[in-house]
Amino acid sequence: MSVAPVEFQARQSIEQVEEGDELAPKFDDRGLITAVTTDADSGELLMQGYMNAAALRLTIATGEAHYYSRSRQVLWHKGASSGFVQKVRELLVDDDQDCIWLRVDVAGGASCHVGYRSCFYRRVPVGKAYDERRSGGHIKLEWTDTEKVFDPQEVYGDAPNPTQL
Amino acid sequence: MSVAPVEFQARQSIEQVEEGDELAPKFDDRGLITAVTTDADSGELLMQGYMNAAALRLTIATGEAHYYSRSRQVLWHKGASSGFVQKVRELLVDDDQDCIWLRVDVAGGASCHVGYRSCFYRRVPVGKAYDERRSGGHIKLEWTDTEKVFDPQEVYGDAPNPTQL
Repeated sequence: MSVAPVEFQARQSIEQVEEGDELAPKFDDRGLITAVTTDADSGELLMQGYMNAAALRLTIATGEAHYYSRSRQVLWHKGASSGFVQKVRELLVDDDQDCIWLRVDVAGGASCHVGYRSCFYRRVPVGKAYDERRSGGHIKLEWTDTEKVFDPQEVYGDAPNPTQL
Repeated sequence: MSVAPVEFQARQSIEQVEEGDELAPKFDDRGLITAVTTDADSGELLMQGYMNAAALRLTIATGEAHYYSRSRQVLWHKGASSGFVQKVRELLVDDDQDCIWLRVDVAGGASCHVGYRSCFYRRVPVGKAYDERRSGGHIKLEWTDTEKVFDPQEVYGDAPNPTQL
């Protein structure tokens, strides 16, 4: 695929980065920028990942979310193996340009390799709920989604699990 | 302030981390975990930050968002200087437990040190919009919010700007 030469600007001043109209992303010492992906309709947080410069350029040029997989160490076109491609409805950058927000429509409605709609399917009780429910300092997570959208075994087969301990 | 001894469990297996009810967060080699904060009503992404273990424990125990400031290298009770405290309505953890999602109510309605409601006030054109609007590879950011909610000079005075180039 030929990709348009999306240009990033050098970071020169706080005013340029915070108040300017130039895209001057800050990649960290691994060459990555944080990406936060929400469902464009529901606002639900679907996943948090990382992009390298190539992934950000491809996302901008194609309108489909690309990430950098830290566990597999490869550029990753989300949905290429599962079919759950993310169409980017809106892409935003934060004040200091070290984080990208993707508002997406997801084909198939699933984003999580475990099989749930969102990667965030467990709730931690906080504040008063923590105080009422804790036994000593022990915390018990609560499920928000109880139904999986797909069977990971059918979709991913024997591909290695990306979770690292 | 005396803080309840919120316990984190050791990470022992993928099944425990992904499918269990134990909180076994993964802090990176800097001792930090990514935190994503959205407005509990609108779903808008307000900010992306980091927590160390103390910040996560305090957030759970108090129900108010605490972060670790990488630029200032301190535990940071959000809103302590600006007044824009974040009350946590729901706290979720992702599949591999290396990211925390906070759904919050913000006193005063502002989260961004530049003065906007959200840190994400600029849009990057993508896909067809990128193709139509680009001149060569050059990208021009578009504003989503044009009105600041507060004057940073009034709120923060001469405190150093957290943005780093």
